[in-house]
Amino acid sequence: MNINLQKIQDLFAVLEKYGKTSTGGITRLSYSTEFHEAQVLLKAFMENIGMSVIIDPLGNLMGTYPGRDTSLPPICCGSHLDSVINGGAFDGALGIVSALECVRSWHQENWHPHKSLTVIAFIEEEGSRFGHVCLGSRGFAGDMIENSPADFKDRDGKSLSEFLTGYGLSPIPNPFTTVPINKKYASFIELHIEQGKVLENTGYSVGIVSAIAGIKRLSLLISGKANHAGSTTMQDRHDALVAAADLSVFIYKNALAAQGSYVATVGKFNVLPNEENVVPGKVSLSIEIRSENTSTLENVRNLIIEYYKKICLEYKVEIEIINEYDVPAVPMDKKLMRIISQSAKALKIKYKTLPSWSGHDSMIMGQHLPTAMIFVPSKNGISHSPLESSNWLDIEKAVNILNLTLRSLADH
Amino acid sequence: MNINLQKIQDLFAVLEKYGKTSTGGITRLSYSTEFHEAQVLLKAFMENIGMSVIIDPLGNLMGTYPGRDTSLPPICCGSHLDSVINGGAFDGALGIVSALECVRSWHQENWHPHKSLTVIAFIEEEGSRFGHVCLGSRGFAGDMIENSPADFKDRDGKSLSEFLTGYGLSPIPNPFTTVPINKKYASFIELHIEQGKVLENTGYSVGIVSAIAGIKRLSLLISGKANHAGSTTMQDRHDALVAAADLSVFIYKNALAAQGSYVATVGKFNVLPNEENVVPGKVSLSIEIRSENTSTLENVRNLIIEYYKKICLEYKVEIEIINEYDVPAVPMDKKLMRIISQSAKALKIKYKTLPSWSGHDSMIMGQHLPTAMIFVPSKNGISHSPLESSNWLDIEKAVNILNLTLRSLADH
Repeated sequence: MNINLQKIQDLFAVLEKYGKTSTGGITRLSYSTEFHEAQVLLKAFMENIGMSVIIDPLGNLMGTYPGRDTSLPPICCGSHLDSVINGGAFDGALGIVSALECVRSWHQENWHPHKSLTVIAFIEEEGSRFGHVCLGSRGFAGDMIENSPADFKDRDGKSLSEFLTGYGLSPIPNPFTTVPINKKYASFIELHIEQGKVLENTGYSVGIVSAIAGIKRLSLLISGKANHAGSTTMQDRHDALVAAADLSVFIYKNALAAQGSYVATVGKFNVLPNEENVVPGKVSLSIEIRSENTSTLENVRNLIIEYYKKICLEYKVEIEIINEYDVPAVPMDKKLMRIISQSAKALKIKYKTLPSWSGHDSMIMGQHLPTAMIFVPSKNGISHSPLESSNWLDIEKAVNILNLTLRSLADH
Repeated sequence: MNINLQKIQDLFAVLEKYGKTSTGGITRLSYSTEFHEAQVLLKAFMENIGMSVIIDPLGNLMGTYPGRDTSLPPICCGSHLDSVINGGAFDGALGIVSALECVRSWHQENWHPHKSLTVIAFIEEEGSRFGHVCLGSRGFAGDMIENSPADFKDRDGKSLSEFLTGYGLSPIPNPFTTVPINKKYASFIELHIEQGKVLENTGYSVGIVSAIAGIKRLSLLISGKANHAGSTTMQDRHDALVAAADLSVFIYKNALAAQGSYVATVGKFNVLPNEENVVPGKVSLSIEIRSENTSTLENVRNLIIEYYKKICLEYKVEIEIINEYDVPAVPMDKKLMRIISQSAKALKIKYKTLPSWSGHDSMIMGQHLPTAMIFVPSKNGISHSPLESSNWLDIEKAVNILNLTLRSLADH
């Protein structure tokens, strides 16, 4: 009844050839030749273990292993097949390979659960082609009301419609989205690498995700007065850079003191005129706050606003919010989390419950279906890099938990 | 024996037409048509008041009013004729017009001092054509050993040699520089607008410059680790931006507390990768310190280095000095300063002794000849702007002091 690690490694080793870069990383952009070839590989593998395969109007690959009652909504499991540019082999691909190993083991036993199981290899989760993350899962879930495929353009100006045509799909799928997925599917489980160091630092082989952290993004413009860096006395300055710097240190130190309840980052910081002999007149900067707790996001925002009022007085500058938007936190399904933890306990595998600090297809799916995620530790927390790696013994434990979870969900 | 303010205003009003912009500013770049026309105007004015005029191999305009003994090295007085792009009418031009009013008044009286007086209208002080400040005075002083005229290029790629040719001058003057000026001239006096607010804030009409502040410039590269802004815990970060921000605030607050003995500016600040969802991995920044006291520059530099060692530990980053160079402070000549202050006292005009926080041709001349500067207050400290202005009554006082100073120097 256990999964076979060697089989996982075998499929993984073949899959990572599609998009391998000279530096040992993976560049497998959605709709590319290597992406298409990886789909062809997976399709053949799926058919070989008794699954029926379709490609949906956006290019998501779905293989369904039939349950004993095919009239019931299937359980879904999977992750994304695309990568960032020169990313790692584990990000996304591991979740697909893991789900397929579960099905392979069932097929080998000639076991069919009560409900069908659909394994999905999503397209364009990373947004590396069109700059919009989770495009595949959004389309699958029917979320893409605001855009048409002709509006998405890659960096060469080629539209999603053109890519779909090249893929043998309709340039403007009609309807572009499928019927609501909560009518068609029962739940979604995603196994993924953590892309952080929490599991490694705390010594766990497996994580159960409590929520996908929400994101609050603020863009600020700090306006002082550009002036001569020699003849303007310190007292007469309205230095936008120092005001922005003070605010950045404040944001960092508060987040550091928050002991993991949120993270905050000043990532973008642009200075005008940015000349060594001119007191900076303007700074635009971005603030990103992430927490699994929506009220924490609000509180931190208010703390920052409160502090920057003080900064305006101290440095004689003005601050305005240029842009602000939220990506709400998506809590994982409590019942699914419990089934995963019960599976872990049955297998005597210790796990840690933790939020996911980065976005995943599960962030989209979790807004439509009961959804849960299983995390595998990332070595040194590194991802989106050729150095991305995970321990195969950790992976074996996680896939065994996934297998038991899917069995109990599908055979319910 | 006094100068005539109306005559100053008349010449000033004609001169400011050359390069007037639609926004009321002045764009009179070296070697431009408007610059050349302004030289033609000044040449005619000079000849009309008994001066013999030459243009030196670089394009500096010099008119000499003969003394009773023309074998003696002349006294020099003047400033620069070029402007920044859309700068003000007073910066540079006022010093030339003021010197010429002194000579005009002497010529009107038919008075000739013992020594000759040479009024210089320097070319390319601002560096707005070639990006090198004080090119005219450097060339005049023989300082340009490191470059040939073919190496200086403007933003369109046109070389100084080409401009010189277009000006009817030799493309490669041979010798490029003139004989050492301390063999040819006795001293240099420059009247200039302050370009700061010290005189205005303290209520003086005239300033006597103690020194041109020295400049220390440091370019630093702060290296942390670029990482995911969600999945990297605050504890695991190596955030180059926060380290740079902390250092910037430290530099500012120390300079503010120094009560005018120096100024310090972080003017350039570039972040990599500068993405809102990535912890910044690298920041390059410039630090500029100005003081009339060379030991202050050294002490502030050492204070910054000491502090950034602390920052490396606190933020787990590395800092390296990419570039460092000094422009030494140039003290003004004590004897000349005394003659100027005696002239002010004789005229019952109060003056303030203060450093110049920006560079001037006197910075170059002061390295070769006894040199002094007289400052006129700038309204609101503004310069390099169409809003640049000075009070004509202040100007009248300053030019009377200049006149008395030149008379006593030249008739010595």
